[in-house]
Amino acid sequence: MNLASRETLAARHRRLREALHAASLDAIVVTHLPNLFYLTNLAATAGIGVVAADRISLVIDFRYRAAVEELGKSPHGCADCEIVLVERSYDETLTALLRKSGFGRLAVEGAQLSVNRLFQLATRLGADIDVGGTIVAPTSGRRGGVLVASDNLVERLRILKDPYEIETLRRAAVLLSAVAVDVLHQVRPGLSEREFAAEIDWRLKAAGFDRPAFDTIVASGPNAALPHAHSGDRRLHDGDLVVLDFGGVSGGYCVDLTRTVALGTPDEEMRRVHGAVLDAQAQAIAACRPGVRASHIDGAARDALRHHKLAEAFGHSTGHGLGIEVHEAPRIGPTQQTPNGEEHPDDTVQPGMVFTIEPGAYLPGWGGVRIEDDVLITAEGVEVLTAVPRDLTVR
Amino acid sequence: MNLASRETLAARHRRLREALHAASLDAIVVTHLPNLFYLTNLAATAGIGVVAADRISLVIDFRYRAAVEELGKSPHGCADCEIVLVERSYDETLTALLRKSGFGRLAVEGAQLSVNRLFQLATRLGADIDVGGTIVAPTSGRRGGVLVASDNLVERLRILKDPYEIETLRRAAVLLSAVAVDVLHQVRPGLSEREFAAEIDWRLKAAGFDRPAFDTIVASGPNAALPHAHSGDRRLHDGDLVVLDFGGVSGGYCVDLTRTVALGTPDEEMRRVHGAVLDAQAQAIAACRPGVRASHIDGAARDALRHHKLAEAFGHSTGHGLGIEVHEAPRIGPTQQTPNGEEHPDDTVQPGMVFTIEPGAYLPGWGGVRIEDDVLITAEGVEVLTAVPRDLTVR
Repeated sequence: MNLASRETLAARHRRLREALHAASLDAIVVTHLPNLFYLTNLAATAGIGVVAADRISLVIDFRYRAAVEELGKSPHGCADCEIVLVERSYDETLTALLRKSGFGRLAVEGAQLSVNRLFQLATRLGADIDVGGTIVAPTSGRRGGVLVASDNLVERLRILKDPYEIETLRRAAVLLSAVAVDVLHQVRPGLSEREFAAEIDWRLKAAGFDRPAFDTIVASGPNAALPHAHSGDRRLHDGDLVVLDFGGVSGGYCVDLTRTVALGTPDEEMRRVHGAVLDAQAQAIAACRPGVRASHIDGAARDALRHHKLAEAFGHSTGHGLGIEVHEAPRIGPTQQTPNGEEHPDDTVQPGMVFTIEPGAYLPGWGGVRIEDDVLITAEGVEVLTAVPRDLTVR
Repeated sequence: MNLASRETLAARHRRLREALHAASLDAIVVTHLPNLFYLTNLAATAGIGVVAADRISLVIDFRYRAAVEELGKSPHGCADCEIVLVERSYDETLTALLRKSGFGRLAVEGAQLSVNRLFQLATRLGADIDVGGTIVAPTSGRRGGVLVASDNLVERLRILKDPYEIETLRRAAVLLSAVAVDVLHQVRPGLSEREFAAEIDWRLKAAGFDRPAFDTIVASGPNAALPHAHSGDRRLHDGDLVVLDFGGVSGGYCVDLTRTVALGTPDEEMRRVHGAVLDAQAQAIAACRPGVRASHIDGAARDALRHHKLAEAFGHSTGHGLGIEVHEAPRIGPTQQTPNGEEHPDDTVQPGMVFTIEPGAYLPGWGGVRIEDDVLITAEGVEVLTAVPRDLTVR
């Protein structure tokens, strides 16, 4: 498996330490596993990182000891990293480590960490909790510093891909495009949705993907009106529109693609709706450039569909960020409200962001169309990473 | 897809309402998706349920509208269920719904809900928060009741499988056993771990599983010493022990199985270690009966491995619960400590619990052995759900 180099990891640690320093934080406890992978290259189902100014402690259990020791000796290990083996439980081990370190203001990942786990940790440490300025003392007597519920500190770094990540995503998108071309050749009447989904998944792995990025969607005929249909027992047949939405994970990074195929000669309405969605996607891609707001890109797709009298048929967001998670920041959708009732400032698009552009039109009882590609924002504008014909494929 | 009947769902709602009543709670906001599936049959990547004494509100977005409406009309829909479509965002829609309902004490899922999301919700509602008796008021002026961070209210129901779930898990275990027999026949030198993992995944889907329950593990030779190895590029060859750990999801429920295979004639030490792990598994299964503590079952496996001088080679827990999640309660492991430093009472095993028994022995540089089956606790004792020969398979 390809992994980020020691130097790339060190650059990520530098950016995180700058963010900690700016927020007057001594360290951060990283419990969200995609963030742990980003910072250490460790792909595990459990593990905790504690990133302080001068070192990283990696709390792992027995199962990962050998893998972590191997990684540490490789060119992909992280510098200044001490391994702490779990005794009894993760949070008991973490507590002992934090007590020894004596941090004053310690960030936890408030957007991910459960409220019960945070309060238990504070109780173990005798620490106060700070959530958005509200201070809570679960135990009397402040001995253990303050646990500060931070908001997406690591995710805010991850939103801008570094050169290693851009290269990884570019390669994964090329690989996914090759799979998609094959998949578009293989789709045929007679197969059940579930059978064809299994075939797509097999092709993803045969091409070298670690795994599908999510449950592959094969939604045929009326099922195509359900934007997140599961692949079921319905058999594909002539006269169907079939939405094929699949993605893969390569080197730990997710790419995602959708095409809609007509089985047999498509009728006028199929061509019209497909053309409208294609137009919406083209408008949204054309709107992508550094400095625009995500809601502006979403609006471009929405305006195009309104022009084609399909505004009501498009209910989801236009896109989502891609990276270590298949849904991450930025969200390419309409503006939302903050808890205080104000307008939530959506992300401004910047070079290094990678996200999907996937408008669709869904007409209950009739079917649906979705077209999805992955784009990278560059200094100049936008680079479409996936390369698969977008015209209505007819089989 | 098979789903629980309307009556089964209603029985689950009754048990949940009894638990709410016992804790003086007016309703619960269900945000953890496996819990939402358990209560509504809705398998979605987003959605919120609000279960009150007299009704259930299901907050879903556009993408799931058609699916939820279909479900509601089927024999698998839930009674007294109102659908609330998301406007702008889930939490804005949830806030509006909760304001209208005017609950006094409202449970949230504290073991799952992130601290930031809970505090944002409390801010939107003007509610206080109660975490384990610590009361927090994020906004001044109490207008919106109290959000009580509950601890595994729904999970505590899920730990005892109902007859529908037992039947589903039994069938899934039989299906997995059939796949395993094929897999044990197909394993052969020359394939890479990754290739064989892709073949296992394809077989799982061909047999009718919705998807693999987790990333399939094919760990060969020295890699078998890494209990959670990823399947990599190493090719299987003569003289290897190969750990094959895979599972499937059927009807929304997870089953999980491991066998260790010898390629070529195994040497003395391979036979000895395999025999020791087999003995540990047999001892642990023999210890399974209603009324014993989970740590007692774990201890039986650990004692057996100590007897074989392999105590140090077994670092993980003996098993984990199976159900809608592939790792759920009960945990079959050593006793842990509470945040207050007391002994955490581990679960007492009861009829209706389903979990894995999977001791292993891992010797760095040499390799490893793990043997895993799925068991159901019955009134009489234990029923092993998976049925695949446990002797060392030699290929």
